[in-house]
Amino acid sequence: MRARTITILGSTGSIGCSTLDVIGQLDGEEKIEVAALTGNGNIALLAEQARVSGARLVVTADDNRYQDLKNAVSGTGIAVAAGRAGLIEAAEMPSDCVMAAIVGTAGLAPTLAAARRGADIALANKECLVSAGDLFVQAVKAGGGRLIPVDSEHSAIFQSLDEKQRHAVERIILTASGGPFRTWQRSEMAGVTADLARAHPNWSMGLKISIGSATMFNKALEMIEAKHLFDVRPDQIEVIVHPQSIIHSMVGYTDGSIIAQLGAPDMRTAIGYALTYPSRTRLNVERLDFAKLARLDFEAPDEARFPALRLARTALERGGLQGGIMNAAEETAFQAFVDGRIGFLSMADIAEQVMEDMVGFGMASSMDSVFEADAEARHRAADIIDRNAAAA
Amino acid sequence: MRARTITILGSTGSIGCSTLDVIGQLDGEEKIEVAALTGNGNIALLAEQARVSGARLVVTADDNRYQDLKNAVSGTGIAVAAGRAGLIEAAEMPSDCVMAAIVGTAGLAPTLAAARRGADIALANKECLVSAGDLFVQAVKAGGGRLIPVDSEHSAIFQSLDEKQRHAVERIILTASGGPFRTWQRSEMAGVTADLARAHPNWSMGLKISIGSATMFNKALEMIEAKHLFDVRPDQIEVIVHPQSIIHSMVGYTDGSIIAQLGAPDMRTAIGYALTYPSRTRLNVERLDFAKLARLDFEAPDEARFPALRLARTALERGGLQGGIMNAAEETAFQAFVDGRIGFLSMADIAEQVMEDMVGFGMASSMDSVFEADAEARHRAADIIDRNAAAA
Repeated sequence: MRARTITILGSTGSIGCSTLDVIGQLDGEEKIEVAALTGNGNIALLAEQARVSGARLVVTADDNRYQDLKNAVSGTGIAVAAGRAGLIEAAEMPSDCVMAAIVGTAGLAPTLAAARRGADIALANKECLVSAGDLFVQAVKAGGGRLIPVDSEHSAIFQSLDEKQRHAVERIILTASGGPFRTWQRSEMAGVTADLARAHPNWSMGLKISIGSATMFNKALEMIEAKHLFDVRPDQIEVIVHPQSIIHSMVGYTDGSIIAQLGAPDMRTAIGYALTYPSRTRLNVERLDFAKLARLDFEAPDEARFPALRLARTALERGGLQGGIMNAAEETAFQAFVDGRIGFLSMADIAEQVMEDMVGFGMASSMDSVFEADAEARHRAADIIDRNAAAA
Repeated sequence: MRARTITILGSTGSIGCSTLDVIGQLDGEEKIEVAALTGNGNIALLAEQARVSGARLVVTADDNRYQDLKNAVSGTGIAVAAGRAGLIEAAEMPSDCVMAAIVGTAGLAPTLAAARRGADIALANKECLVSAGDLFVQAVKAGGGRLIPVDSEHSAIFQSLDEKQRHAVERIILTASGGPFRTWQRSEMAGVTADLARAHPNWSMGLKISIGSATMFNKALEMIEAKHLFDVRPDQIEVIVHPQSIIHSMVGYTDGSIIAQLGAPDMRTAIGYALTYPSRTRLNVERLDFAKLARLDFEAPDEARFPALRLARTALERGGLQGGIMNAAEETAFQAFVDGRIGFLSMADIAEQVMEDMVGFGMASSMDSVFEADAEARHRAADIIDRNAAAA
């Protein structure tokens, strides 16, 4: 029996590094060989990963770093490529499974290419579903590979959802930490600045993710991803605030039963599940100790303070490109917030206005339509920000 | 396609009534026809259930009530039987599934008969596993039927344990409410009387179950049942106190993932799952609202205050008849406690002493050995109680 093979798109990021860690823990029948790795500017780490894992191809997304990477792996026999074409080459190279962990719209084309050739997709890139959901799900189906979520919430649902009992799925319940301003009044949130956010003790994941958690835009994106991953109606998707983030998400069935997946905050469990699915492996990760946890809390999310959730419902009901439009507008607004040009609460206002303005943009029928909507949403969001600045 | 058929052993009790309620909610392909019902002294209810459900046979365990039952269903064409032979007749009558809900050792022989003929067993009787575990599990295997637990904790584990991932099961985590004296000191517990217990506001389930919850002997029995049901080692069985009893139990896997089943406190979900397994049905039961629940608490059980858990581990390690001996001694001690003859903490002391005295009793190799150990344990427990009373 030959070992399964994997391609990691985005191997030098957090998910990519954890994926290599998990691969290092697998042995025997579970052993996975690395076909290709791709990264961006961290050439030293990328080359090191390629050497240690025995990759056959290594790719930097940055055309200008081709020679650096070439030098870094010289004498190893590892093939080297660069740029967008290199990413596609890595995605199209035969392998059983592709870890799609490139951040942003840059991950779209290579992940789509991998889906089309029928690889199992372990999905950590959000744009594939948020911006190009219909297109992407169709590509996976046409290719015949499996789509396995890596995000902890979606992995939890995937682990709790018995495919044979799909007829009995009543609701999926996404848990949300509520972010660092969970208990703040809306008036207090209005005064949050990027500097204040950076100084907040609960910050640990980088500004983008932390702000996304504070606005709950992260959860809004997850709602849209859940719709595509699990083929449920918008009204079947619930969000519950659960500050400890121990219950990663749940599935409610028509017999009143709820199945939940719980775990320590360690992405390796979800990554391991995606890599060895449908089997489970043994991983050296922290085990939950319920006596130490002592309590788990829950509260209804307040859509007045977290309008992102309301926007996600709107995007779900409208369908098509609205998810990607919301995401692109929010990312543009986020940058303006970080630059001190707009307030904390304006991020949602701008996303909402752009979504409203672009209602006529139709379906995610091609990559071009996805990129066009993305660019247009960023353009319109920037326009609104400029006009507001001029008016102020 | 013919409808599936069921026999309910113990139809007039709480589980039996809920089972008939669930059957009434099933339709279409899920429809289940009633083959036979058995009850004890509540002839009016038993006859009513038989008429409404269209049972073909109805049985009272009480020989003296045969004529009453005969009269109560006269003109319906429903066959009538009584006594032990009648219970066996019901158990052996062809049906796809048997709900084993007769309380106590009286449930042993008919459930074993049903298992031997290959019926699927929905198990609500605890003695089958606690007292006759090895024998019973072997009978189910030989018969070729499925064994599906109905108890909410074991149903939760059954729902959370992916049979194909048995190699990756690391631990099962039984949740325990901790009972009404959960926060009491051992010195306070020493002063608990049956009258005080009856007056406690948390009492709602009848004195036997409530005292079993207060001493955690119920949980001790569940630990032993879990061992037989899920074929795990004693050290793989954990107990965690969870006062709200919303998480009904959990399974921990070797990849760090925990799968849990949650639900409202309504036996119909577990019963429905047992009846329609491996499919899930739609039931009119309360749905969980996490915002309303607000919090779930956990704490390590204190074996100094709840020695029953320690006794269960001893019984698990010794195996054989020790589970049944623990149960029989505890039931005898419970009656002495209710009669005001011994204190609250003495119940565990007596069970421990009888278990110790009967270490040499070997395996549950036959029904006779099980009944003999049961009678001997009750006899020895009574002896200890009498001696203590004489010495006082």
